[in-house]
Amino acid sequence: MSDHVAEYLSSGPSFGEGEVIERIETFRKRRPRLRDTVVTLAHGAGGKASAALIDAVFVEAFRNPLLDNLGDGAVIDLPGGQRMAFCTDSFVVQPLRFPGGSIGQLAVHGTLNDLAMVGAVPSWLSAAFVIEEGFPIAELRGIVADMAAAAADAYVQIITGDTKVVPKGAADGLYITTAGVGLVPAGRDLTPHKVRPGDRVLISGTIGDHGMAVMLARGDLAIEADINSDTAAVSGLVERLLEAAPSTRWLRDPTRGGVGTVCNELAQATDLAVVLEEEQLPVRPEVNGACEMLGIDPLYVANEGKFLAVVAPDEVDAALAALRREPNGGDAVEIGRIADEPAGTVVVRTGFGGTRIVDMLVGDPLPRIC
Amino acid sequence: MSDHVAEYLSSGPSFGEGEVIERIETFRKRRPRLRDTVVTLAHGAGGKASAALIDAVFVEAFRNPLLDNLGDGAVIDLPGGQRMAFCTDSFVVQPLRFPGGSIGQLAVHGTLNDLAMVGAVPSWLSAAFVIEEGFPIAELRGIVADMAAAAADAYVQIITGDTKVVPKGAADGLYITTAGVGLVPAGRDLTPHKVRPGDRVLISGTIGDHGMAVMLARGDLAIEADINSDTAAVSGLVERLLEAAPSTRWLRDPTRGGVGTVCNELAQATDLAVVLEEEQLPVRPEVNGACEMLGIDPLYVANEGKFLAVVAPDEVDAALAALRREPNGGDAVEIGRIADEPAGTVVVRTGFGGTRIVDMLVGDPLPRIC
Repeated sequence: MSDHVAEYLSSGPSFGEGEVIERIETFRKRRPRLRDTVVTLAHGAGGKASAALIDAVFVEAFRNPLLDNLGDGAVIDLPGGQRMAFCTDSFVVQPLRFPGGSIGQLAVHGTLNDLAMVGAVPSWLSAAFVIEEGFPIAELRGIVADMAAAAADAYVQIITGDTKVVPKGAADGLYITTAGVGLVPAGRDLTPHKVRPGDRVLISGTIGDHGMAVMLARGDLAIEADINSDTAAVSGLVERLLEAAPSTRWLRDPTRGGVGTVCNELAQATDLAVVLEEEQLPVRPEVNGACEMLGIDPLYVANEGKFLAVVAPDEVDAALAALRREPNGGDAVEIGRIADEPAGTVVVRTGFGGTRIVDMLVGDPLPRIC
Repeated sequence: MSDHVAEYLSSGPSFGEGEVIERIETFRKRRPRLRDTVVTLAHGAGGKASAALIDAVFVEAFRNPLLDNLGDGAVIDLPGGQRMAFCTDSFVVQPLRFPGGSIGQLAVHGTLNDLAMVGAVPSWLSAAFVIEEGFPIAELRGIVADMAAAAADAYVQIITGDTKVVPKGAADGLYITTAGVGLVPAGRDLTPHKVRPGDRVLISGTIGDHGMAVMLARGDLAIEADINSDTAAVSGLVERLLEAAPSTRWLRDPTRGGVGTVCNELAQATDLAVVLEEEQLPVRPEVNGACEMLGIDPLYVANEGKFLAVVAPDEVDAALAALRREPNGGDAVEIGRIADEPAGTVVVRTGFGGTRIVDMLVGDPLPRIC
C-alpha cells in the first residue's frame, strides 16, 4: 500500500471494513493520471478525462469516508438511525430549450434522479442561478415554471436558492445548479458490492434520446429528425422496481457518457464483466439514424430519464413486469448480464456472434448536453 | 386579501398559524414590482432589485411552506424529530484570489455561515464547478486546496460534487456553487418573530472588509490600501454566543448588500425599527478611507466572516464577553437596538444627534464581490 493510499485511508472517522476495501480498490483503479495543464472540454464529458480530473484534483483534496468520488450522491447516517442522501449537479446545456424539455426540467430531474439512484426518496431541492446580464426575464420565468412543474410532478419541493448575475459575456445565458436531499428507507443498500456473476442488467427504456435531441436542436448539423429528450423523473419507477425486485443490487442513470460509461464504472468497481447484447439495446430508429450519420455510438449518448438496474436472476421477470406497467417504463428490457470474465471490462455481443469491447469515452463528441 | 395572496396561502401542505401570518406579511411587504424585461447586474446585488426578481420570479413559481424566500437557508422537520437546515450559494467573485482569501474559501464559508445563521451545526457540503475551457489546472488545485482547508478548519466535509466545463468565453474562469446541510439542535428557533423593542443589535466584528478587499484587488481603482477580506467560518462563534445568550432572537450574516440591507430585511420582517449608532459601527480606518474615496457607505459593503445578532437586553453583556473571547470575535460590539418607531425602517443616529434613514440598496456599486 502506497503512503498515499495509507494516508487516504487513515484520514477521517472510522468506517466499515467492506467500505475500506471498496475505497482502496476504487482509489487504485479509478485513478487515471492527469497530465493536462489546463482544463479542456473533455474534462467535462463524463469519460476518462473527467475521471482523471475528479480523482487527481477533487478526491485528492476532499478525501473523507463519505465522499462519493463526485458521482451520483453521498449517503449520510444521521443520529437517530435515519439515512440521508445528498447530491448536486450543475446544468450548462445549450440551447436552453430543446424538443422535449429545457434546462429547467433537466435541473430538477437530474438531481432528483441522482437521489433515486442511491435508493433515496427525493424530497427537497435547492436551486442556484448564475444569470448573464441581459437575459430576458420572460425566458427566465418560463424556465423557472418548468422547474416548478417538474418538481411538483415528482412530489419534491424547491425550498432554498440563490441568484447571481454576471456581466454580459461572462456566462452563456443561464447556468443552474441544483442540490438535493432525500431520506433512504431502512434496509436499502444499493452498491456495486452486491453485484454477482449471473445478475442481469436492465434498462428502463430507450437510449440516446436526450443527447441526440440536444445535438439536433443546435441546428448546426444538417440533420432533421423527430427526436425528443427523455428528460423525466425516474424516482416513481425506482420505487415500483424495488417493491417488485427487493434484491436489486445497483442502480445508475446513464447521463453524460451514456450507458457505455456507466457500465465501465460498474465493471471497474466490481472487477467483473458487463456483457451487453447489442440486439437488445433499445434505440429508437430516428436516434440510431442520427447516430450513424454522426459516427457516434448510442451507447455513449446521454439520457436524462432512464436508469440501469442490476437485478438478481430470479427477480428479472417481476422487475420487468413492474417497470413495464408504468408510463415511463414501457420499453424496459434486459440488455445484458454480469460475468466473471473479462474482469473489469464491458463487452457487447453483436448479432453475428462476435464481441467488441466498450471502453470509457476519452474525448467529448457531445459537449454541453446537460 | 388579494386572490393572489389567497392562492399563495392555499397551496402546499398545512402549516402553523404563526407561519401563515409571517408569510402573508413577508409576501405583502417584500414584493417590490418587477418592471424590467431583462436581467441586469442590479438584480444580483442583494438589494431592492434582487428582492423584486426573487419574489416575482422564484417565490412566485416555487411557493411552498418551507421556501425561505431564497434567503439564508430552509429548515426541514425530519421524521423522528430531527430538524435539518439546507442552503445553497453560487460564487462568481472576480478576481478569484484577493488579499485574505479566494473563491474557494468563500464557497465554503458562505454556505456554512448560512447554515449557522438558522441555528444549524454545519456538517456536510456539496461543491459544483462550472469551469471555463483553458482554466489552469494548477490554479484549480490551489482553489480546491483552499476549499479543503476551509472545510477541515470548520469541521465540515465536502462529500459530493459535480464538474462541468464550458467553452472559452462561456464563463469567466470558474464559478462554484456549494450547498450545505446541517442539523439544528433541539430548542433552537432563531426567527424575526422573536425580536422585540428594546432588544440589542450586535455585530461580531468590523464591517466592509471583504467587499473593499475585492474591489481594490481588481486594480482598476487607483487606490492602494492594506485591506484583507474577512472570509471566515462563523459557526464556532455562533455556538459560543448561543451558549452565553440562549435567548438570542435572530442571526444574519451581512454578505451582499451589507449590514444596511440585512437590517432593512429585519425591519421589514418585524415591522419594527432598527436604530443603529453611527459611532459604534466598527469600520477599519483603511476601509473607511477607501469607502470615502469611492463614495460608498460601509453599511452597504459585503462581509464574509461576520454576523449580526439580535439579543435580549439582559444577555448583552454575556453575549459580548463570549464573542470577544474568541479569535474572530475580538471586535464584537453593540451597534444599535430595536425600537417601535419608525416601523419597518432602519435609521442611523449620527454623532451630532441627527438621524438618517438607511434604505435598501437599489443599484450595485460593488458587482461580483462573492
